[in-house]
Formats: sequence, C-alpha cells, structure tokens
Amino acid sequence: MAELIDGTVIAQAIQDELGPRIQRIAGTGIPAGLAVVLVGENPASISYVTAKERDCEKVGIRSFDLRHPASISETDLLALVDELNGNDEVDGILVQLPLPSHIESDRVLERIAPEKDVDGFHPLSLGRMLLGLPTLLPCTPQGVVEILQRSGNDPDGKHVVIIGRSNIVGKPLATLLTLKRPGGNATVTVCHSRTPDIAAVTRSADILVAAMGVPGFVTPEMVRPGVVVIDVGVNRVADDTRKSGYRLVGDVDPAVASVAAAMTPVPGGVGPLTRTMLLHNTVVAAERRRGIT
Amino acid sequence: MAELIDGTVIAQAIQDELGPRIQRIAGTGIPAGLAVVLVGENPASISYVTAKERDCEKVGIRSFDLRHPASISETDLLALVDELNGNDEVDGILVQLPLPSHIESDRVLERIAPEKDVDGFHPLSLGRMLLGLPTLLPCTPQGVVEILQRSGNDPDGKHVVIIGRSNIVGKPLATLLTLKRPGGNATVTVCHSRTPDIAAVTRSADILVAAMGVPGFVTPEMVRPGVVVIDVGVNRVADDTRKSGYRLVGDVDPAVASVAAAMTPVPGGVGPLTRTMLLHNTVVAAERRRGIT
Repeated sequence: MAELIDGTVIAQAIQDELGPRIQRIAGTGIPAGLAVVLVGENPASISYVTAKERDCEKVGIRSFDLRHPASISETDLLALVDELNGNDEVDGILVQLPLPSHIESDRVLERIAPEKDVDGFHPLSLGRMLLGLPTLLPCTPQGVVEILQRSGNDPDGKHVVIIGRSNIVGKPLATLLTLKRPGGNATVTVCHSRTPDIAAVTRSADILVAAMGVPGFVTPEMVRPGVVVIDVGVNRVADDTRKSGYRLVGDVDPAVASVAAAMTPVPGGVGPLTRTMLLHNTVVAAERRRGIT
Repeated sequence: MAELIDGTVIAQAIQDELGPRIQRIAGTGIPAGLAVVLVGENPASISYVTAKERDCEKVGIRSFDLRHPASISETDLLALVDELNGNDEVDGILVQLPLPSHIESDRVLERIAPEKDVDGFHPLSLGRMLLGLPTLLPCTPQGVVEILQRSGNDPDGKHVVIIGRSNIVGKPLATLLTLKRPGGNATVTVCHSRTPDIAAVTRSADILVAAMGVPGFVTPEMVRPGVVVIDVGVNRVADDTRKSGYRLVGDVDPAVASVAAAMTPVPGGVGPLTRTMLLHNTVVAAERRRGIT
C-alpha cells in the first residue's frame, strides 16, 4: 500500500518556519497584512475566505476582510484594488474567484500590483516565473513542489505527468517543474481532454499530478507500480451521511493506493499546502516591500 | 526519405497574406512601423538587424534603424525605449539581444510597452499567453506552430516532444502548444539536460522539436519512423570552403531524414518563419493600436 503523504504535517512545518520571519516583519513597525476581497455570497467562496483569514490569524498575519455585495460595479471593485495597491499596511491582495459575471476577472487580477499579487495569478507574475526571474509563484503549483520536495520525492530528473491544463494548476505547474532551479529540473508532460490515450501517458510517469477536476478519474490501471501520485482535485460529491450534505473527493480513485509508492489524500493533501503558500507569499511580499529579504 | 518542409515558401505565403493588411494600415495615414534597436557591433547581431530591416522594406513596413555604441548607459537605453513607447509612428519595438554586460536585459525588455512588444519577450506577454488572453506571441514558437499547421502536421492531439527549455523557444513553445486553441491542443513533453534518457523520450514523439543549440544532437536512433521533425537549432560551424568561414547547421543530424516522415532544413526551415512572425506581430500591433482588428 502506498505511503500517504500528509499535507497537513508538511503545511505545519512550513508555517513553523514562517513564524520568526513574521515576527521580524512585525518588528519593522507594520505587521504583514493580507487583504481578502470577497464579492457576493457564494457559500464555497465564503468558506474559503473564512479559512484563509483564520490561517492568517493563526500565524500572526493581519488580515483585512473586505466583503462587497454581488452588485458592486467593476469600476468600484477596480477602485478598491487601486486603494489596496497604495495602502502601506497591505502586503498582499487576494480577490476570491469567481467574480460575478458582470465583472471581467482578468481586468481585476491585472489591476493588482504585481508585488502584492500573493495568489500569483497576475500575468506579469506568471511571465516572470516562466523566465526564471524573481516573482511571487502561484500557490497550488508552489504547494505541489513543496509537497514533493519535503516528502522525499524531488522532481529533479523525474518524468512528471500532469493531467489538466488549467490556468491555476496545469500550465503554471508544468512551467515551474521545467525550470532550472531547486524543485524543478523535471521532464514534464502535460496531457488533457484532447490527449487520445491518457492512460498510455500516465503509465510513463514517475510522478503523476492529477488536476482536471473529475472525481476518481485516475484508476489503478492508469499508473505503474511505484509511481508517486499528487492529487490536486477538490470535488464536492453529494453525501447524505454528512451534515454539510457533501464530501470532498480527489481526481484519483483511492484504489490507486494499491499500486502507487506514495500518494496524497483528499482532503489533507495538496489543499493545506495551497493555503500555506498564500501565507508564504504574503511573508515574501512583506519582506521585499520592507527590503529585508 | 523525409519530405523537406520548405520554410521559405511558407514564410512567403504568410507575407503575401500580410500585404493587404499593411496597405489598410497605411491607409489610416501612418504606415506600420518597427523600431530596431542595436547596441554595439556584434557581427551576428548586425546581420540579424540588417535582415529584419530588409524584410520590413520588402513588405512595406517602415523600419527605424537605431544603432548605439556598446558604451551607451542603461539609463540612456531605457530613455530611448520610453521615447519609442510614446512615439506614435512606432508600432513595434525590437531590442536586439545580446546587450552589453553592463546593461540588465530583463529591465530593458520589461520597459517596452507590452502593446509594442513584437518579439513577445515581455513577461506580461508571456503570462497573457499562458492564460490564453490576447497578446503578441513570441516569434519562434509562433513560427513553429505556423510551420506545423501549414505543412499539414497540425499538433492537435499529437504528442509533441521539445528538447530544450530556453526562454525564447522551449518553455514558451510548450505553453503555446498546450493551449486550447487552433495550433494548440497537443500533449507536450519538455526534456532537457537534466533528462536521464532523452532518446527514450524523443522516440515517443509524433512531432519532435529540437531547440537546444547542439549541432547534430538528434540522430536517427533517437526517433521513430514517421516522426515529424522541426529543427530550431541555428549553429555556426567553421567551414573553410565558405567565404564567410562558417556554415549554419541545425540541432538535427541530416541522416534523420532517412527515418522521419517530414523535416525542416537548416537554413530555410524555422528561420524564415521567425523573421516573418516579427512582421506579423508588427502588423497585429499596428492594427490594434489603430482599432482596426
């Protein structure tokens, strides 16, 4: 049976390392601060935002809770971003997605000052990442790299197959793992809905990253013995036995554990890392803004 | 024997298509214009710049030849870029690389207004490409996509293996071929110097792109019968029989033609496409600036 890689433990280790840095930042007079912008009342978004603010509180980052009704105009939302860009107490700005359909998300995300782009979604951040320049890296891809390195599965020299080509996981993760840098140097393949025989590709992986958002898509026949599987999927499936009425499942069938050497669970795998990399990015942004890198 | 894919013919077809668009732009009162900035007297750079200006003249794009001694300060070069950014007769700005070592290339390239970034090297351009947003695409990757599509080798659904992870070819090409768009939709693998067994990877390719800058690196044993090979390598090797004292060779051993189904030559393959995509990008930039897309 595969070793279960505990994302909660790894995330806690990273948070512990952030502690002294957060104290040092606070010592400059202004503590590290994250502005969390929520538009509307999507229940999933509310629970994400609440969790992120709780994470901040736990490690000593100040969070600014900025909630607006779904009726806010794009102009007003852009003005809010401008104000946060200029606010010296704000080191990071997170605009929770999705935004209402009358607001152009790309325009809002591009408006965030790149040095405060702690989600790493700004095209300038992504372009600088591709070029290997210093920048804030997107949270989930960065979390996947951390989980690999800290679980003894460094991607250097390995064949990593990524299923899915999303803007927040597949494409930026492929770029990040290709870079000539610690945590990179992998041979990377991206496959997706237009790949004729996905199983043939996934069976060639040393490390398999599932990130397409289809519950239980990866089955035991699709992997070879000894593979390391990172499950980025977070799917809600109906479950009457839960108080919430649903449970979270990944993109990987749990039966894959009978073939893989190591595997991340859902929940408790990549999720805690994504959240922790947001804290990490806020600390990095705060240090850079104060010149204490 | 492999069909030879004639880059010169494909490039000419694209230039012919640009003709009416260039005339329409000129009809607005200001012809499409490309500013070509050359610093120093590197012989290869001089010949590239001269060729680019000749290309412009041939299709009816106005070029501005801006040559400065290697002693120019970074401040003065940045001021020149600022002036060109604000110059209404300039639609595209090309800064020929390499720049002298006392100048930070990244800083100069990031100073170019993204809407005039006809090389597609600006991180904002690359980030917007990764996100699938409208932008100016880097010339060589875009040229590779054109050569594939126009030679009847559409990458959609194919396994494309790219050797090399440079900022101007490997990494952006991998992203471009992964995108959900015409000319994309490929399953893409990037391998490089840290890949333990490159031949095992290249033998799995339907389409192989060689872009690492090692003369004759790809040999017949490294490909499977029927592969389509795109040779992006441009290497100067000494040749006493030539007046110039050198000849250009690719990254692919010509003997690969005995195994491949189709192959691009060097010279006369990707090179003419790279040059033509610069003209194409200048036209696109000029149209967008005039609102005639």
